[in-house]
Amino acid sequence: MTTPTLRGIFAPTLTPFQPDLSPDIPRWIAHCQWLLEQGCHGLCPFGTTSEANSLSVEERMEMLAQLVDAGVSPDVLMPGTGCCAIPDTVRLTRHAVELGCAGVLVLPPFYYKGVSDEGLFRTFAEIIERVGDSRLRIYLYHIPPVAQVGFSLSLIERLLKHYPSTVVGIKDSSGDWNNLHALLTHFPGFGTFTGSERFLLQTLQAGGAGAINAVANVIAAAERALYDDWQSAKAAELQQQIVAFRQAFRTLPPIPALKQILADHRGDPTWLTVRPPLVGLTEAEVAEMQAALAGSPILPAREAL
Amino acid sequence: MTTPTLRGIFAPTLTPFQPDLSPDIPRWIAHCQWLLEQGCHGLCPFGTTSEANSLSVEERMEMLAQLVDAGVSPDVLMPGTGCCAIPDTVRLTRHAVELGCAGVLVLPPFYYKGVSDEGLFRTFAEIIERVGDSRLRIYLYHIPPVAQVGFSLSLIERLLKHYPSTVVGIKDSSGDWNNLHALLTHFPGFGTFTGSERFLLQTLQAGGAGAINAVANVIAAAERALYDDWQSAKAAELQQQIVAFRQAFRTLPPIPALKQILADHRGDPTWLTVRPPLVGLTEAEVAEMQAALAGSPILPAREAL
Repeated sequence: MTTPTLRGIFAPTLTPFQPDLSPDIPRWIAHCQWLLEQGCHGLCPFGTTSEANSLSVEERMEMLAQLVDAGVSPDVLMPGTGCCAIPDTVRLTRHAVELGCAGVLVLPPFYYKGVSDEGLFRTFAEIIERVGDSRLRIYLYHIPPVAQVGFSLSLIERLLKHYPSTVVGIKDSSGDWNNLHALLTHFPGFGTFTGSERFLLQTLQAGGAGAINAVANVIAAAERALYDDWQSAKAAELQQQIVAFRQAFRTLPPIPALKQILADHRGDPTWLTVRPPLVGLTEAEVAEMQAALAGSPILPAREAL
Repeated sequence: MTTPTLRGIFAPTLTPFQPDLSPDIPRWIAHCQWLLEQGCHGLCPFGTTSEANSLSVEERMEMLAQLVDAGVSPDVLMPGTGCCAIPDTVRLTRHAVELGCAGVLVLPPFYYKGVSDEGLFRTFAEIIERVGDSRLRIYLYHIPPVAQVGFSLSLIERLLKHYPSTVVGIKDSSGDWNNLHALLTHFPGFGTFTGSERFLLQTLQAGGAGAINAVANVIAAAERALYDDWQSAKAAELQQQIVAFRQAFRTLPPIPALKQILADHRGDPTWLTVRPPLVGLTEAEVAEMQAALAGSPILPAREAL
């Protein structure tokens, strides 16, 4: 692998909604800028955490264009562009490449289940050839607990063989260290990001590219500190604090929980809104989470959020 | 329930593709017309069998408009319109209603897993209120083996209570007779269609509305005969022949298998094309299926297809 990949802490940015459920783009841009100030190396707008699959293609294109217009460098952007239908994925991917985005994070088509590696290979071949742009850099988005459809090692190997300068990395949200370890071992130099904050230190120790995970929306500074100091004596403690933060709401759906934390710390209830089919937390859930988070040494102070 | 529902044999129409993977709309319209001539009471363009989730919103709208333009009455159309994102579902649904379609078949949002009935209720409430048209008739599309997200009895009850003249039926593709029986028992007068050809006779005996299933793309005439004669002495034999037809390719993916049968019988290889992530059958699979189908008394003769 000779193509350099992105590296670092990337946040799959939460998407704020107005009361009518339309994206609150100015608030979203401010959040993106804050995440970069907090130490994120880059951003993945339109990941699972972003409720991307509850947004239309047009909404996603409009948001991304406004983000770049607002001055966020496309060099740090890896937007999610994978949809069920190839024409949608091609349209979003081409748009991201034309805006100059450094990479795209691509879900496999996720409606039909039990599809073959051959079918998934053909899907990515169609996407790559239809976009037809040498600037395209694809990061595979492996999240079988949600998408149900994922990337086997042999499929990745085949994609790398055919498209070595285009397929440059993966976000592994399997939640399975064995899978992540296999990726890190089989594909040295490939841009392997952990999708779980639990494995950040192990990923860095094994030569991985970094992390793309939901909690970066709140504790990016802590993840950045661990990224920078992973070889230091305090790395294990930082990793433990990050795990403990996530444990505080381990029984709750992560997207409304993280939006609740942002709303609480910014004093901004706009952040509470999710698009159906997601729903917000109950009062009891909020109280339980707030109690569990109290005293977290890495939760940003109220004024900083 | 006072709103009359659609009844009968509906085909979730297969979608032919050109070599460049664009929909072959003239061939598709001819197939739709043939299905009606074969005895289908109506059509469900853009079901799972239609590879609907491999088509963009724009492709689906263009196809549906051309189908109505070609003279197929919207009175017999129940297009699939359910997507992951509410704006997409609203756009497709509004378009179908404005074309005069008698109903729409609506998948739940299927990306996020483990979503609550409350979240699904809010999704459908948003769709119904945003479309805001008294002509809207929704048929719920319950297909948990593929969508993973489905409709519980209590969710259906709540939807019926709030939107009794809008939510008028369901296609049950759970493959589970117990679930289908529960629907037929709990919601008399509701338009309950079996999604599996296996349960056609039982569904009709229990007062159901009919069937919407993949095999109608080939054996609509046989399903229509059973629908018309379900109280006759020959009903059990017809049901058995229909089951045997499906059994001939029970181990194969149904969409490429049905396209293969159409291609063989029409002498038209255009029908072999599927959009990735689906792939066509292997030669061995084709040979096995052809042998198993030989002698089926309900497979249309080559000239009729």
